[in-house]
Amino acid sequence: MKLASLKGPTRDGTLVIVDASLTRAVRADGIAATMQYALESWETVAPKLRDAAASLANSHERHAFDFQEALATGKIAAPLPRAYEWLDGSAYLTHVERVRRARNDKVPESFYTDPLMYQGGAGDMMGARDPIRVVSEDWGVDLEGEVAAITGDVAMGASKEDAAGAVRLVTLVNDVSFRRLIPAELAKGFGFVNGKGANALAPVAVTPDELGEIWKDGKVHLKLRCEVNGKRLGDPNAGVDATFSLFDLIAHAAKTRELKAGTLVGTGTISNADKSTGYACLMEARLVEQVEVGAAKTPFLNFGDTVKIEMKDGHGASVFGAIEQRVEPYKR
Amino acid sequence: MKLASLKGPTRDGTLVIVDASLTRAVRADGIAATMQYALESWETVAPKLRDAAASLANSHERHAFDFQEALATGKIAAPLPRAYEWLDGSAYLTHVERVRRARNDKVPESFYTDPLMYQGGAGDMMGARDPIRVVSEDWGVDLEGEVAAITGDVAMGASKEDAAGAVRLVTLVNDVSFRRLIPAELAKGFGFVNGKGANALAPVAVTPDELGEIWKDGKVHLKLRCEVNGKRLGDPNAGVDATFSLFDLIAHAAKTRELKAGTLVGTGTISNADKSTGYACLMEARLVEQVEVGAAKTPFLNFGDTVKIEMKDGHGASVFGAIEQRVEPYKR
Repeated sequence: MKLASLKGPTRDGTLVIVDASLTRAVRADGIAATMQYALESWETVAPKLRDAAASLANSHERHAFDFQEALATGKIAAPLPRAYEWLDGSAYLTHVERVRRARNDKVPESFYTDPLMYQGGAGDMMGARDPIRVVSEDWGVDLEGEVAAITGDVAMGASKEDAAGAVRLVTLVNDVSFRRLIPAELAKGFGFVNGKGANALAPVAVTPDELGEIWKDGKVHLKLRCEVNGKRLGDPNAGVDATFSLFDLIAHAAKTRELKAGTLVGTGTISNADKSTGYACLMEARLVEQVEVGAAKTPFLNFGDTVKIEMKDGHGASVFGAIEQRVEPYKR
Repeated sequence: MKLASLKGPTRDGTLVIVDASLTRAVRADGIAATMQYALESWETVAPKLRDAAASLANSHERHAFDFQEALATGKIAAPLPRAYEWLDGSAYLTHVERVRRARNDKVPESFYTDPLMYQGGAGDMMGARDPIRVVSEDWGVDLEGEVAAITGDVAMGASKEDAAGAVRLVTLVNDVSFRRLIPAELAKGFGFVNGKGANALAPVAVTPDELGEIWKDGKVHLKLRCEVNGKRLGDPNAGVDATFSLFDLIAHAAKTRELKAGTLVGTGTISNADKSTGYACLMEARLVEQVEVGAAKTPFLNFGDTVKIEMKDGHGASVFGAIEQRVEPYKR
């Protein structure tokens, strides 16, 4: 089952069911008005959503609409338009290794057993086609292509198995980062506030069963294609070189607190040891350039630049739809 | 105007208006079902809430109920039972100075101009009488008595003046911390995830106009009385030694992102340079003992221990009601 949200009438949007090919969709508000409500009432709501999804697949939904048109005309919000928790891990240590190598530093041993994770803002998740709005290009605007799980309720002290059972949906994230603000902020020791912007989610979120074989052990086994201004930045495989699965990361986040339905847990930037796969963020390209040719050459994003983040299955079909965003000056 | 929330029927609770003395209350669900809705629709909702508050003050609300009884019987949730953002500053640098001094370190100069702030979890705010539930006493469970502002929408790049205009309500927070988990977590460099638990809010949140003269320049000019097991831990004045006001902290948080209605911004642990005022967290008492007598003597909280956090005005009346919590073993 694939789910999305239309923008409005409230800030939580309106839940819609989307067909496997992302062609047609139907409002689910007779079953659950919002994604947040569906997540809180999953046991009773999910079977009804599945019935409606089956009707849609069989073209029996008279009120279905063109999902691609809705997406192109700015009507689609993030599947979960706002979340109470955004906990972002660093599952792909290649990414961390490249950061450290560029400053002649090593990754601490503990990072391979104890996940690095930060808590980010989630009160405003951007739709997949919403612009990235920033006050200044000088912030060093960067994309970060990631996979994220949307959970149900998770108990404090949950095991990896508990975590696996709590994954309701999987989607893609663009974790927008302001690279030039981060070093000074992290030096203060309390993590990110100014260094990260609002995030965007892919057009749809997908249930684990619908993902089938590409979802295994808490990882999506597909390449994440990232483009900047229409040119390939990379296509690292999210199933490769992940030290931690989303199950590990959820269990880590739940160690000392309950996670409530609608919690979003991210993998961190996808990154493979094989450099020919390229990168899912500009910073990594710059760090490799710094080490190999002595200086970073790839620029950060400027006004007017576009990014695209997408995963295609073995048949070339887009699994979550593409995140496609343009950087624009922020106006009040 | 003083506002609170009853628990249920949804996770957002039911908005209630409380009289100035915290004696009687009336459901506001004919005006706004939830605090979150009221905050999103403040311009249209607040005048109606004020009318109902005036009726309540004049004993014209036939359906008013006993607020203290509801509180004592566990029916009162946090005024905002869950929030999309919890951004906690460090306004009282005396607190930071004591932490650093205990490890023979100084506070960086920049901390006096650029606020230290972290993003915490807010998807589960505890009611003022809910237990602090932890899996292990070994975590080093501590209270942190703070003041927090609940904001309306704040634009990216908001000035201090914009921030002042966006404060909708003020309340108290117990920012539960797990001291023995924090050093290793902060050493990883990404801030707090496991080191902080769910927070509790005071029984009511209060509008700035209702606070009157005790609310000035983004600070509450009253002592915050903190007790552990019925004994005074301290009563530092929140209007004294605050390097940053809540206006400064909101503007800092909004530097690179919009804050949406319902954002909770905290002052960090209240702390005065005058040691005779005591402390609003156990760690600070321990750090001072470490420096002065060579070892920390004040224990962290164990199962069965109780904490109380309250602010009284010049007439001895409780402004926000007391946070009163007991530490209990977490059970699924």
